[in-house]
Amino acid sequence: MTEAAESKGRGPGRRPGPTETREKILAEARDLFAEKGYDGASLRAIARAAGVDPALVHHFFGNKEGVFIEAMRFPVDPSVLLPRIMSFPRERLGEMMVRTFLDVWGDDDRRAPMLAMLRSAMTNERAAALLREFVASALFGRASQATEAPPLGIQAAAGQMIGLMILRYVLRIEPLASASEDDLIDLVAPTIQRYLTS
Amino acid sequence: MTEAAESKGRGPGRRPGPTETREKILAEARDLFAEKGYDGASLRAIARAAGVDPALVHHFFGNKEGVFIEAMRFPVDPSVLLPRIMSFPRERLGEMMVRTFLDVWGDDDRRAPMLAMLRSAMTNERAAALLREFVASALFGRASQATEAPPLGIQAAAGQMIGLMILRYVLRIEPLASASEDDLIDLVAPTIQRYLTS
Repeated sequence: MTEAAESKGRGPGRRPGPTETREKILAEARDLFAEKGYDGASLRAIARAAGVDPALVHHFFGNKEGVFIEAMRFPVDPSVLLPRIMSFPRERLGEMMVRTFLDVWGDDDRRAPMLAMLRSAMTNERAAALLREFVASALFGRASQATEAPPLGIQAAAGQMIGLMILRYVLRIEPLASASEDDLIDLVAPTIQRYLTS
Repeated sequence: MTEAAESKGRGPGRRPGPTETREKILAEARDLFAEKGYDGASLRAIARAAGVDPALVHHFFGNKEGVFIEAMRFPVDPSVLLPRIMSFPRERLGEMMVRTFLDVWGDDDRRAPMLAMLRSAMTNERAAALLREFVASALFGRASQATEAPPLGIQAAAGQMIGLMILRYVLRIEPLASASEDDLIDLVAPTIQRYLTS
């Protein structure tokens, strides 16, 4: 891969394909995010480190948020999920939020990277800063715009869902660990609804 | 009490004083809890490992829960806090719960060991099992008895408070990290009230 990356330009050497270039950008992005934090790593700097034009990064990932989501294998793209949630009537906002969270967590492949990020953030200040910045701008900022909920309400709702995830999937406390999704929605949706709409 | 215990322990004899004996019991308890889990480590086994009579362990710590709380430096004793919370009118249950949590977390010396346990539980299955068993029997069991709330309601409430703690004190997300205790009580107390009383 180094060889492929380095042999671009003229000559008979094989030019890197889109997949290799994409992976190279993600690898550089991971390094830069780890080094400079989410706010400190610009899309331009990521492109420079990967030796590509910023327009190509934009083409592959949309924006810095998209690069982060891919680089960290963050299993949720708020720019996809939020419009879906908001397409339901406002009185079902709490229910749809909880349903969406439960969908993501119910899937081992998507829960694992979320828990990994949370674990890192809980044991490493650098990882905490990275997650804080990403969550603040990409998740809470977007959710605030979409739902018009107050920031504290959004964070209380997020706290509810994070704590529930820890008790259900990490500590596996009963009866929470075995509760059905419908029971959890009945239990928690009114809370989220209140935080987001009052 | 510690002072009195220590001055007694410095007597002229060569027998271990109460402070040394107490510390010996706690050290053995930590090992046994780590090895066998909360349910698997009996008060009798802890006494045996420390070379003392079970009655002495009972005298120092009351019961196994008391040994655990001391051994793990768990900063909250539900047998003290719950009666205090329950002494208020039932319609203030949510408020008093949130107020109690915020009191504990606002104190660095008590928040640190709670976060340490949570970190261990999130990265180590053995620690998770230990915390799960302790939380299930000593915290949630007691809270359920005292409040007559359904187990799922208690766990949803606990999830809310744990998630809030992580966002406020670990990730330090704003505006949550700087919010006043009163603002947090206004925000979260109705949620806890609903979980515990409906």
